[in-house]
Parts: sequence; structure tokens; C-alpha cells
Amino acid sequence: MHTVVSSATREVVIGSDQPFCLIGERLNPTGRRIFADQLRTGDLSRIAVDVEQQVAAGATMLDVNMGVPLTDEADLLARAVTMVQGLTDLPLCIDSSVVEALEAGLAVYRGKALVNSVTGERERLDAILPLVKRHGAAVIALPNEEDEIPDDPRKRLEITHKILDIAVGEYEIPLSDIVVDPLAMPIGADSTLVCKTLETISLIHDELDLNMTLGASNVSFGMPGRPALGAAFLAMAMRCGLTSAVMDVRTPQIVEAVKAADLLLGNDEWGAAWIAAYRAQKAAQVS
Amino acid sequence: MHTVVSSATREVVIGSDQPFCLIGERLNPTGRRIFADQLRTGDLSRIAVDVEQQVAAGATMLDVNMGVPLTDEADLLARAVTMVQGLTDLPLCIDSSVVEALEAGLAVYRGKALVNSVTGERERLDAILPLVKRHGAAVIALPNEEDEIPDDPRKRLEITHKILDIAVGEYEIPLSDIVVDPLAMPIGADSTLVCKTLETISLIHDELDLNMTLGASNVSFGMPGRPALGAAFLAMAMRCGLTSAVMDVRTPQIVEAVKAADLLLGNDEWGAAWIAAYRAQKAAQVS
Repeated sequence: MHTVVSSATREVVIGSDQPFCLIGERLNPTGRRIFADQLRTGDLSRIAVDVEQQVAAGATMLDVNMGVPLTDEADLLARAVTMVQGLTDLPLCIDSSVVEALEAGLAVYRGKALVNSVTGERERLDAILPLVKRHGAAVIALPNEEDEIPDDPRKRLEITHKILDIAVGEYEIPLSDIVVDPLAMPIGADSTLVCKTLETISLIHDELDLNMTLGASNVSFGMPGRPALGAAFLAMAMRCGLTSAVMDVRTPQIVEAVKAADLLLGNDEWGAAWIAAYRAQKAAQVS
Repeated sequence: MHTVVSSATREVVIGSDQPFCLIGERLNPTGRRIFADQLRTGDLSRIAVDVEQQVAAGATMLDVNMGVPLTDEADLLARAVTMVQGLTDLPLCIDSSVVEALEAGLAVYRGKALVNSVTGERERLDAILPLVKRHGAAVIALPNEEDEIPDDPRKRLEITHKILDIAVGEYEIPLSDIVVDPLAMPIGADSTLVCKTLETISLIHDELDLNMTLGASNVSFGMPGRPALGAAFLAMAMRCGLTSAVMDVRTPQIVEAVKAADLLLGNDEWGAAWIAAYRAQKAAQVS
């Protein structure tokens, strides 16, 4: 299955026979007080730094979330999307829990965006899927309902089926434009949570062959040694069928793990990308 | 399935609900010209250094191979095994392609060793399995025949079944004392080889629930950036069901990946080992 997203001038293909799609998570005020304060006063200047760093680190796409309380999120997101598209030709994830913000972001977006995200409640599907359809976008589907994340991977598969029935059957969105989020949660909260996420990935890969993405940084939340945990998690998840992640692309160890897994899984023929990256790294160390 | 090995005073349990079993690969003259020359002249002094380094790095077991051409390998292996058991209480893998050397190593070994290894040819099975049985050892079974490594994971599973039929059915070795080697080969030789190894691991895990080990360093042979490749490979293989590896324990990035995967797969409850290792590492950096 190939999911194609694009900016005005660049296309990205997500798929299990493609190099992993690294979606930079950084353009998001959650947990960033200074950035949130800047955005609240209308100062978007920090965005340029975050875009540059993530592009340099090898991001394939960038997530843009402007969820700052007590602001006009729709206006802020539209301005941020326009600004980011002026800075990079990477395709974007338009990320909000507010329907009006998604709509404003999609309205100004040039290309085919990935909408982040829709959940399984009927009213959310009926609010967001028409926007996705109208703009010809792709969409991330979270198999949870009523803010409750089902523990059982089979239940997550069941909600995924429900979302697909509505998205494809009723709204006629192509199946290839649905990217499932198998829901990653912190290992520090419960030592079985990562296995449940990995089982969900395997189930959705084996039974539906859909593309998947998730918030990879969630897994190591609250633990020491986050880069090594993120690296090991993504390698395991890629083997199970994960094809993309909204992730910390600025940490070299995590990006290196993804590139290593690309090679080991046969998506970097002759190791061309791996060897080129290694040479570039060595050259940078010398200079 | 639990495979129990031991030295005179320490027991190690290998199993999918246990922390991964890290078998240090370093006591092996292959590719170590100076070490091979020393061993040829009867100088075993380097062994003490290699044991100390691997124990300090966190090995669970040590592999001992004394395959130096034009030497009395049986005598050398017996002396090395005795020496290593005087230096550490970690259980050992007794590693040779020479039956007489395995026999000499087992004769002096105190505890329950892991014999590395037997292949699927009838004459090898009939030569090695009686030794394994007589000494109450465990054994690594390689599903290949006539020096040919089958490409197809199902063929590897088939040879595994053949070995089990003879080992368990004829020689009455307990099933839990068979550790299968799913055969790891260099990604640089062919970009599909690692997927075949991972598929073999999944098949043997799902259909036989046996413990498995492999030579993890093979995977990155000839490539740059070996630590990152080894780290990503082991995380993926552990998710598929690998429970042990003969590996480079002296490279921190690889050991860290194994410990991260232990945590993520639920074999390090509350992250106690992960957090303790992180604190020890920080303390070492400060001092």
C-alpha cells in the first residue's frame, strides 16, 4: 500500500517497500512554554529555527501543531502552515484537535497534506472526514473512542475497521489515504503497553496492509536514556510493519536506528543511503 | 520454554520471559591474528583480558572457541575452558567444529555447558549429540546441511524439525536443551538476508517456542556503522523471538539496545535494570 502526500513541489511515498517516513514532531507548543508564549503573542520566529533543524536532521515530513490555549488556533495554524511552506518543500502533517483549525490549515496548504488526526467517534468522523475528502488529503486514524484507549490490540483493530467503513464506504476516501495510528504509550506507565502497540502494528499490517504512524516519543516519556529507547522501539516497530512516525528527528541515535532498520529490512538497496550517511558523518567530524 | 545452563556456582535461564542472554563472542581467534599466534605458541594470557572486559561489559555467558589451524585444538580448548572457569563464574559456550575438541572441553567443564554447535547432517548429529547427552549439556542446532545455508525460512524450519526428531526422539535430549540458530548472514551480501533470518526467528518462535541464538556480528560484516546496525538488528530479532546472541558485548550501543528491548518487551519490570544501568553510567561519567 502506498500513501502519497505532497507539498507544491515535492512528493513523498509512504509504504512498507519505501524508506521509513520520518515526520518531525518539533513544531508543537506542547511542553514548550517559551514557544507557547511566543505563539500567544503572535511571534512565529522560532518556527524558522525548528524547520531548519528538522530538515537538516533528515525529516521526510513535518508535523505542524499550534495548540496554544486561549489563542485563535485556526488563524495561528493557517499562518504557521503558510510560513513553513515558504521555508521548506517537505510535505506537512496538519495537526490539531480543533476542526476549525484543521480546516484553516487545509485551506492554505499547497499540495496533499496528511491530517492529524481523526478518532473513532461518529461525530468526529462526520466533522473531519468531509474536510479530508474535499481537500483530497490523507488522514491519520486513531482507533480510540471517547478518549479511552483500548487495551486489547483486537479492539483497536475493530475500531480501525469501523473508521475504514465510514471513511471509505461513506466518504469515499481512498483506502490508501488512511494512515492508522496504532497508539504508542509510555513504557514507564505499564511494562505491557509497548507489546500491545507492537501487536496492534502486526495485526494491522497482516490483516489490512495499511500504512501506519505513531507518536514515537511517547514510548520513552518519563524514562532516562530516551534516545536508546526510541531507537530500539522504532527498529522493532518497523519490523512489525510501522511505515512512519511523528518523532524526534533531531536526536541522531534515533534517526540512525531508523536508517539501519531501512537497510536491514531491504529498503536501502546495496546500502547506498547507509554508506552515504556514514561518509557524510565522517566528513562532518573531520571538518 | 526455559533453557538452563550453569557454571559450578551460577545458573542462567534463557527464555522469552527472561532478560536477553548476551553471549560474549570475543574468546575466538577467528580474524585475530595476534591472538591466534599467541595461542599457537601456548600463550593463553590474552584470555584473561578478554574475559575481564566481557564480564565488565555485562555478558551473561562467554563463548570459548580455540580454532587455531595446526594446533591440538582439543588440548587448547580444554585448557582455555579450565582457565576461563577460574576467572569467571559465567556459564560457557563450548565452541568448535571439531568433535574431539568439544569432547575435551566438555570433559573439563564444571556445570551445564552450551555446546556450539551441531548441524543437520546425520553423521554430525550422531557424533555430537551423544556427547551432549552424556554430559547433560544444552546444544545449539544450526538448520543447515552440507555447508549449504537454505535460503527459505521454511526449509530452515524443516531441518530444525529433523534435528529435533533425532536429538529428542533418538538421543532423548530434553527439548528445552535445544537452542536453535536461525542463521544470521551479512546484509552487505544481499539485502534480503536479514528478512529471511527474522522470518526464521518468527517461524521457530511461533511454531516451536524454542530458544534461539545466533552470531549477531555477522549481520553488519563489511559495512560501516556496525554498532548501529547491530543495535537495530538485535532489537528487531528480539521482537521476533530471539532470546540470546553470540555477540559483541564490548560495544556499549549494542548492549544498550538489548537492554532497551528487554524493557520495551516487558522483561525488565518497572525498568529497574534500565534505570540502574543509566545511573551507573552517569556515575561513571562524573567520576
